[in-house]
Amino acid sequence: MAMEAKEILKAHIEKIAVLTDEQFDYLFSHFKKQSFKKGQAIITEGDPVDSEYFVISGCLKSFFINDDLKMFILQFAMSTWWVSDYNALYNHTKATVNVDCITDAEVLCLSNSDREKLCNELHKVEHFFRWRTNRGYVAAQKRLLSFMNNNVKHRYEELLKLYPELYNMVPKKLIAAYLGVSRETLSRL
Amino acid sequence: MAMEAKEILKAHIEKIAVLTDEQFDYLFSHFKKQSFKKGQAIITEGDPVDSEYFVISGCLKSFFINDDLKMFILQFAMSTWWVSDYNALYNHTKATVNVDCITDAEVLCLSNSDREKLCNELHKVEHFFRWRTNRGYVAAQKRLLSFMNNNVKHRYEELLKLYPELYNMVPKKLIAAYLGVSRETLSRL
Repeated sequence: MAMEAKEILKAHIEKIAVLTDEQFDYLFSHFKKQSFKKGQAIITEGDPVDSEYFVISGCLKSFFINDDLKMFILQFAMSTWWVSDYNALYNHTKATVNVDCITDAEVLCLSNSDREKLCNELHKVEHFFRWRTNRGYVAAQKRLLSFMNNNVKHRYEELLKLYPELYNMVPKKLIAAYLGVSRETLSRL
Repeated sequence: MAMEAKEILKAHIEKIAVLTDEQFDYLFSHFKKQSFKKGQAIITEGDPVDSEYFVISGCLKSFFINDDLKMFILQFAMSTWWVSDYNALYNHTKATVNVDCITDAEVLCLSNSDREKLCNELHKVEHFFRWRTNRGYVAAQKRLLSFMNNNVKHRYEELLKLYPELYNMVPKKLIAAYLGVSRETLSRL
């Protein structure tokens, strides 16, 4: 598995920035492999946040409980997705969202300070992380547009296009929580 | 004004990345100054998008009309904010959102290809743009959380804390469109 995680990260980064083997080994030495059980919390609202997570296997969710105690899912994260509470991570504040595991999961953990150090040392790593955040920014904007658009059927189809593996991996209740509708509304689609 | 725009951009970038005068002059030579009138469209849904805009003065909005013809405001952009349809810009697709001017406005326009060229040539510029997108990503996540949270009063107070100048600059109808509530609901707060 150690080898596999390394290969998955390498293939992911090489799509954007080609590092020498030496550079990649150096980069990889800053990641810590962690395994979590289904249901386990990785980030809990109110806690300090000092790392981000690159998913190797399994499925995570980031979520938020609003003032009416209703759960909303911000993001699902599967293999090759990154997840954290980036507001808390970048601004050194307490978490306002939660991240936990929908299935057993393996991740590579990178601390905020190591990411900044690596970006400073290697221009190509900074390029990769700029691209990564650009992609995340666009996904967050799309998510916002999807929330503003009332057409639930359209949003459901979009979701399954974006994450085709989700349909079998994730309870329908969680898909409803992502779309912001009830389980019953989802069943009718 | 030419001088002023240059100074505003310089001060903005220097918060994150200190460039030599020569480097900054080179960077600045890629920006085009543009003036727009109140109500004028900068990006229209369906059009190709090849640039992003750094606001010098005035107030812009990016917005979206949903399937029920209801308008939602994604973002207000005032002095030192960046705005574009980043999904369209990064992915070379047609615009899915609109950007127009709430007031007369002056902006500095940077093309996608020039930004990529500058990031490639100057590590410090890449660092700046990574930070810029990180900030945008966090703002988009907060915006999403604010949408998921039902407490309109809280969201209204947050908005005025984020953009204190908004209260006098922008019609209340547009503030309601940002919060996703009716003008009447807003008046009651």
